[in-house]
This record gives sequence, C-alpha cells and structure tokens, in this order.
Amino acid sequence: MNINRAASILLPLVFFLAFFQESVDGRPLSLSLLRPKPDDAARFARWLVSQSSWGVLNTIASDMGGAPFGNVVSFSDGLPDKGRGIPYFYLTTLDPTARNALKDQRSSFTIGEYAIGTCGKTDPENPSCAKITLTGKLKVLNGDPKETSFAQTALFTKHPEMKGWPKSHNFQIFKLEIEDIFMINWFGGPKPITVDQYLQAKMDSRMAIA
Amino acid sequence: MNINRAASILLPLVFFLAFFQESVDGRPLSLSLLRPKPDDAARFARWLVSQSSWGVLNTIASDMGGAPFGNVVSFSDGLPDKGRGIPYFYLTTLDPTARNALKDQRSSFTIGEYAIGTCGKTDPENPSCAKITLTGKLKVLNGDPKETSFAQTALFTKHPEMKGWPKSHNFQIFKLEIEDIFMINWFGGPKPITVDQYLQAKMDSRMAIA
Repeated sequence: MNINRAASILLPLVFFLAFFQESVDGRPLSLSLLRPKPDDAARFARWLVSQSSWGVLNTIASDMGGAPFGNVVSFSDGLPDKGRGIPYFYLTTLDPTARNALKDQRSSFTIGEYAIGTCGKTDPENPSCAKITLTGKLKVLNGDPKETSFAQTALFTKHPEMKGWPKSHNFQIFKLEIEDIFMINWFGGPKPITVDQYLQAKMDSRMAIA
Repeated sequence: MNINRAASILLPLVFFLAFFQESVDGRPLSLSLLRPKPDDAARFARWLVSQSSWGVLNTIASDMGGAPFGNVVSFSDGLPDKGRGIPYFYLTTLDPTARNALKDQRSSFTIGEYAIGTCGKTDPENPSCAKITLTGKLKVLNGDPKETSFAQTALFTKHPEMKGWPKSHNFQIFKLEIEDIFMINWFGGPKPITVDQYLQAKMDSRMAIA
C-alpha cells in the first residue's frame, strides 16, 4: 500500500465527515458573517437570526384551552448574508400553527445557537450559548409585491426544496411583526435591545469573532 | 512521505472531524437506540425525546399581553437509554419561563429531529424530518423523593455542568405533565398518539432503522 492508496482511502473519509457535519448541524452554507461580540447585542441578534435556518414558532391554541403551541418550522430573513431581521415562514393551514395565527396573531419565534454548531461543548442552556425569542404578531403577507418577492426569494434560497412543495397544500408566506426581543448571549441576564436597534443593526463581514 | 506519515497526518483529522461533529450537533453520547420506523409512532416519539438534549419550552407571558413565549432549555427524560418520556427541566425564576409557569401552568415543549443530526439533507420543515410538541402543565416537582432523585439524576447525567450552576440562582426541577402529543414524522399529517401509548411504549435497543 503506497501513499496514493492511503490517500485514496482516507481522503474521501475526511471529506465525507466534513460534508456530513455540514449537512447535519443545521448550519447554513455561508458562515462569512463571523459571530459578533456578545456586547454588540443588536448585531449579535441579527447574526443569530441570519445564520439560522429553523426555529420554534409559537401560537395560541384556542382548541387546546389557549395553550401556547410551539412548532418546528423553517424560516428565512433574507439571503444568507443579507438578512433584514424579519423572519418569514412558509406555512399551510393543514398545520395548526397557521390556523392558530389566523385566529389569534399573538406569537413568538425562538432560535437556539446550539442548532448552528457554534456553542462547542457548552450546554444548550448555558447563557454563553445564545438564544433569542422574537415576540410579536404572526401575519400573512398583505400582498405588497416587493415584500412578497423579497420573502419568497429569502425562503426559497435558504430552503430550495420549498419550491417543490405540493401546490394543493396552499402554502402562504407569513411574517412575524416583531414587538419585543429577548436575547441571552452571555452571563448577566437578557440583553436590552429595542426593535429599532435590531432592525437597523448593520450586517457586514467585518464582524469580530468573540 | 510514506504511508505512516500520510496516516499520521490524515487519521487525526478524521478523528478530529468525527469528534467535532459529535460535539456540535447536539447529539447525546449514546445513539444505541436506533431510529424506529415512522409508523411505530409511540416508540418513535419516545426515541426522539430520549435522544434529544434540548428544545423550546413554551409558556404564557401575562406581562406581554398573554403572548406565547418560547425559550430554549435543556431537559432530560432519564438516562440516555432509559428515559421515561416525561421531560424534566432545571429552571430559575431569574428566567421568564419559570415565572410564567408559576402563574399559569399551560405549556408545551417542542423538539426538532433536525437538532440531533438524523435528518440528513432534508429541510427542517419537511415532514420526514420529525418534530414533536408535548402540551400540558409545567409544574415544580411536588417533593416526592423518588421522583426528585430520578429527575435530578436524569438532568445531571445528560447535562453534567448543571451540577455547578450557581446555588444563588435557586434552580428548581420542573416537569411537563403531558396532556396531548403532536408529532409529525412522515407525510400524511400528525400521528395519532395517546398519552398512555406514549408513556407505555417500550424502549429497547432492538428498534429497527427506518
């Protein structure tokens, strides 16, 4: 067995493992936006939302005594490096979440940094492994063609298979109109962030690693 | 460069990638319970809960107009291969989730299979990538020493760093008393599972891979 043979066995394994890791940990393809410092709270929040591909969308289940009902959903706030911070969803009323939202718009959307693989061996509940909850109103898009186009491109770019989901399910694009931001990304309690600070935070690739 | 030199370079890389993947994707150490077939719904649900280490715990935020409030938390239903299906949490009233639950026990707990890395390249919202929402009442343990001991061992085994979390934060063990189970793990809508079927499902290592 020579060096070429050894490489022919081991190299594919290296690439397989690298690829498998990429495909299983929920990390989007682009990580060109580096993790901001925890104190840079608004930009950190936008980074976390931008880098995530799924989360738990909460609504009020009136048919279950008004219980809060969380549901795993995919989302996008824009192209991987060009998110605007507003999460868009592709939902069908075959699913309780969309039905609940059409009756009662109160909602929240929760994302854990653990899912994108940048927490290392830290426990998912440790404050240094970030989490964010955006609370507000979950609404069907109102038909503005510019926003519809932006949202559809945002969703279908991050989630290519959505394009092929059954037409008969009548998927509609929803968005969360954010009213409150709860984010923990370090010790010492949630970071105070206003919705304006969050929406206006500038995203660029010069962000420093924490 | 000979075969030994090639192996000395490539093998550590293989192990590094394998280890790194293990440490970032939220998968518990033991995967000895194989993924049940989707039709074996109650056992599939128990498998998903048993293999997960974190999820989103949802409560009603009375101080936010009764909005449903999701929060990333760690949990455990038992030792990795010996879960009982009931999720236990380690919460402090410094965090809104515990405060909300003490005022209003209505709650749900949501887990996505995507987080444990067994969905491959499937989209997190694709029905074949499983998700489960357990709805019920979120309660502080009532002081039964057997349950307290079981829950504490369950939590501290899966989340070793919890043992060292600050005493001054007064962490308490909560559990979700399950009243309803919503699980999608394949096409065709949620699987009907009663709470009894779920709690009585037998977990063993003979489960077949789907």
